[in-house]
Amino acid sequence: MTIPLKIIPLGGMGEVGKNMTLLEYDGEAIMVDCGLMFPGSDMPGINLVIPDITYLQQNPNLLKAIFITHGHEDHIGAIPFVIRQLDVPIYATQLTCAFIKNKLKRTPGLSAKDIDLLTIADGDTITVGPFTLEPFRVSHSIPDAAGFVIHTPVGIVVHTGEYKFDPQPYSGITVDEDRLRTLGDAGVLALLSDSTNAERLGYTASEEMVAQNLDEIFSDAKGRIIVATFASNIYRIQMAIDLAMAHDRKVIFVGRSIIDNTRIARDLGYLTIPDDIIVPVDRVNNLPDSRVTIICTGTQGERNSALVRMANGEHNNVDIMTGDTVIISATTIPGNEELVHRTLDNLFRRGANVIYQAIKPVHVSGHASREGQKKMLSLVRPKFFIPAQGEYRMLVLHGQLADEIDPPPQKTLIAENGQVIELYEENAYLRETVPAGHVFVDGLGVGDIGSIVLRDRHNLSRDGFVTCVIAIDENTGELVDGPDLVSRGFVYMKDSEMMLDEAAEIVVETLANLGRSAHPDTISETIHEVLSGFFYRQTHRRPMVFPVVLEV
Amino acid sequence: MTIPLKIIPLGGMGEVGKNMTLLEYDGEAIMVDCGLMFPGSDMPGINLVIPDITYLQQNPNLLKAIFITHGHEDHIGAIPFVIRQLDVPIYATQLTCAFIKNKLKRTPGLSAKDIDLLTIADGDTITVGPFTLEPFRVSHSIPDAAGFVIHTPVGIVVHTGEYKFDPQPYSGITVDEDRLRTLGDAGVLALLSDSTNAERLGYTASEEMVAQNLDEIFSDAKGRIIVATFASNIYRIQMAIDLAMAHDRKVIFVGRSIIDNTRIARDLGYLTIPDDIIVPVDRVNNLPDSRVTIICTGTQGERNSALVRMANGEHNNVDIMTGDTVIISATTIPGNEELVHRTLDNLFRRGANVIYQAIKPVHVSGHASREGQKKMLSLVRPKFFIPAQGEYRMLVLHGQLADEIDPPPQKTLIAENGQVIELYEENAYLRETVPAGHVFVDGLGVGDIGSIVLRDRHNLSRDGFVTCVIAIDENTGELVDGPDLVSRGFVYMKDSEMMLDEAAEIVVETLANLGRSAHPDTISETIHEVLSGFFYRQTHRRPMVFPVVLEV
Repeated sequence: MTIPLKIIPLGGMGEVGKNMTLLEYDGEAIMVDCGLMFPGSDMPGINLVIPDITYLQQNPNLLKAIFITHGHEDHIGAIPFVIRQLDVPIYATQLTCAFIKNKLKRTPGLSAKDIDLLTIADGDTITVGPFTLEPFRVSHSIPDAAGFVIHTPVGIVVHTGEYKFDPQPYSGITVDEDRLRTLGDAGVLALLSDSTNAERLGYTASEEMVAQNLDEIFSDAKGRIIVATFASNIYRIQMAIDLAMAHDRKVIFVGRSIIDNTRIARDLGYLTIPDDIIVPVDRVNNLPDSRVTIICTGTQGERNSALVRMANGEHNNVDIMTGDTVIISATTIPGNEELVHRTLDNLFRRGANVIYQAIKPVHVSGHASREGQKKMLSLVRPKFFIPAQGEYRMLVLHGQLADEIDPPPQKTLIAENGQVIELYEENAYLRETVPAGHVFVDGLGVGDIGSIVLRDRHNLSRDGFVTCVIAIDENTGELVDGPDLVSRGFVYMKDSEMMLDEAAEIVVETLANLGRSAHPDTISETIHEVLSGFFYRQTHRRPMVFPVVLEV
Repeated sequence: MTIPLKIIPLGGMGEVGKNMTLLEYDGEAIMVDCGLMFPGSDMPGINLVIPDITYLQQNPNLLKAIFITHGHEDHIGAIPFVIRQLDVPIYATQLTCAFIKNKLKRTPGLSAKDIDLLTIADGDTITVGPFTLEPFRVSHSIPDAAGFVIHTPVGIVVHTGEYKFDPQPYSGITVDEDRLRTLGDAGVLALLSDSTNAERLGYTASEEMVAQNLDEIFSDAKGRIIVATFASNIYRIQMAIDLAMAHDRKVIFVGRSIIDNTRIARDLGYLTIPDDIIVPVDRVNNLPDSRVTIICTGTQGERNSALVRMANGEHNNVDIMTGDTVIISATTIPGNEELVHRTLDNLFRRGANVIYQAIKPVHVSGHASREGQKKMLSLVRPKFFIPAQGEYRMLVLHGQLADEIDPPPQKTLIAENGQVIELYEENAYLRETVPAGHVFVDGLGVGDIGSIVLRDRHNLSRDGFVTCVIAIDENTGELVDGPDLVSRGFVYMKDSEMMLDEAAEIVVETLANLGRSAHPDTISETIHEVLSGFFYRQTHRRPMVFPVVLEV
């Protein structure tokens, strides 16, 4: 019987985030990426979401190694939470390794020394079990991003990682097109390709266009310039530094993540900064406004970010003021609109000249749009096409591009997390699923919060709760103390004394009606029912009601 | 002393929604619009937000009349909540009056008969105290939309309502440019103009473009066509009906609001529908797929909307299936992205061909973009320019257009809710503020929920709560029963018995250490402190902790 190659997405398929894909052949597997996702608005109180690795725990000797495409959180963020259980080496390019090390260093109880972290580079060949991997360089919004050519006994699999084609990349680095074309000529079994921008027509614009627009803004600005971007977007940071130098301005980094990342990138030569251009933030006010460039985070309106604190007048060193030019060089991640709009409004309130995507193109995506996705397909010409890394509609829209390629793939497979894709030399199938849900990180707990706790949090957030405590004599059944009512999130207690007093009276009457021989469980259930009904009639709200009956 | 004209925005200034503006002169005032806002994600459990009318309650005989620009919720939605207190006549155009009546009919305890609702039309002149109003027609995403020319003793004020210039409106109705130009020639004191699209460059595209794109989709579709739009967008509904007829399809309305609104609009002649084209939803399956057009709501991913139920397979009559073409003919309101994306994904999962703004322009905004806003300014040429109806950045960006007009306004005033704008013939000033916050509607409560309850709801949603109940002997101070712990939203109770048992032991120890003479308040405070610390150390979460001490 022929042994299939299995591709099992444990994350990132049908969602944007927590990318994790297994390749399995004959009892041995490798993993590509190990990312996290930030919680949606339907996950209150959750800090992070990571992939479910139950399948690997059920098959304890299956996994042999982890390969990381690049250093974004949705590709490396789950490593601290799963690496102790998995206990396999991690392969990544130089800068990606440095970001992983920094992350492990900041994880209590873990250190980079505990982890077998191996640096790979374009041109390397790594063999793990039946798999031989070759990283290839791609252009993305972080340096040292890679895709993987994976030689397997069934055929060659190309995993693009996240990429775009940029004819004028700021870094000079772009996708290795010749190599992909040569692979395509030789024959590729399957292509897993980045679907993020499958809703965007045309090509993603060049970084060079951003550089030109920023240059115009730098030329016009009389006062301070504040550039907000993602802390991992080292290219964009280099661009801001180069512009500052060209316009005779100093550079001030504000915020821990941007200071961390620029130090790491600079140490490894990914960022070029003359020493004399950097000024510490506490000396910003010694410089004339026209010589200041601040580089910071906060493009998503994150509450504790540098930009938000500056916009709110809560930063120790920098208050945004009239004359400042603030550039938001990033896209708004869906779900963050309200926070971003609030931050923009506060920047405008302080009198800043704020320049953001709607006003002028000061950012381009790190992902290929439809024409770029089509180009990738045309280069690789896979037998089987697996749109990866995207919400479901993006996978489908990406998949529709297959028809526009010559020759088209033999089959396009739209999978979701956990769905096993079986590849043979001549055909491919979607098979049964393995566990692959969300694992929630909340404080110290990893995986202990599930749908029940989230449902309770949701209910509590809508209408609050009321606890009703009574003490009854365990012999006579007589009410000894209470009812004491505790409530939060339901009504404003100070204005609702009358209603709560009435609720207490109703509980007393209910007890009287039940008689002294009633079982405590019966008492509880009856109080629950009576109070729920009473509160709904009074308010049309449905607080959670918790009776507590003590027998004394 | 010269008496100023005061313009007081009670809503809609610095926000999108709950529009309400007062014009006050010498002890008499009129109101333009009386809208609601839908709650943001930081307002859990809140149903609606309405303006604060404290200023009018403090000045009980001030208000003389309400004028409504058009029938959208953010212009009429607060009427049922404030009209009893205000008790003044409401003036609106015919269709707007009909929507208000329908709204009052659906409000328990109110009926259209209780309200003095007066129909006005283009060409009318209404005098109320020192104010004389003339409605003028504008093009917007709902029929019968008006702006107002308001003659006051200080000068003419133009309030645009919400408008766009459309060279090819589907209805044939566009802004009355000649009239505005004539007013501008005569001299306008102040312009209050719609800022909604101040972040959009160029002109808003024409409705005719949408009609052409929809026609292409209708031509290509082999199966059923489902058009989702706002229930109030009567023009778009007419467009879908006309296309259905042209392509030999029947029309099925699905959802209460769309059935209500089309009935109202049709009765008044705003919608032309031949009887034989409408088919009730329960007969949809009697028609061949190629003859079906469904018109429904749900463009915002609202949980109980027709489209969402169809996408989830929860609708009684219609399940989305392969072969269906679904058109989302609307924009996504900021904050609704997650729900909209989930709905799109579910439609794709069911195999539908889904066409939405990112794929093809199947919607245009009802608001003027920057070039249209500039045109309005150029026509009216006000002495004072007051950007209205928009979040703060939109007001500022709109205000910046003043410099591009010849002659530019003498002054541009960026106000926020509650800020009194004083206008004299020769100058204008921003003055002190009057109360103008959010009033929350939650169930039957209007205004009883404030920041404290919302903060509690927020905390409960993040980490839940723990109630700890004990009974102590009121004479001896001895623990008689408990500790009983009730918790929700904090940990999964079934898996956390050990921790909760330990918490109970800690409470017993704490009581022992306090001694039997401790005051119940001291006991409560100490339990609160000890348990909060214990839970944080165990979980790094911060549930709300509520001790209840009964003395028996």
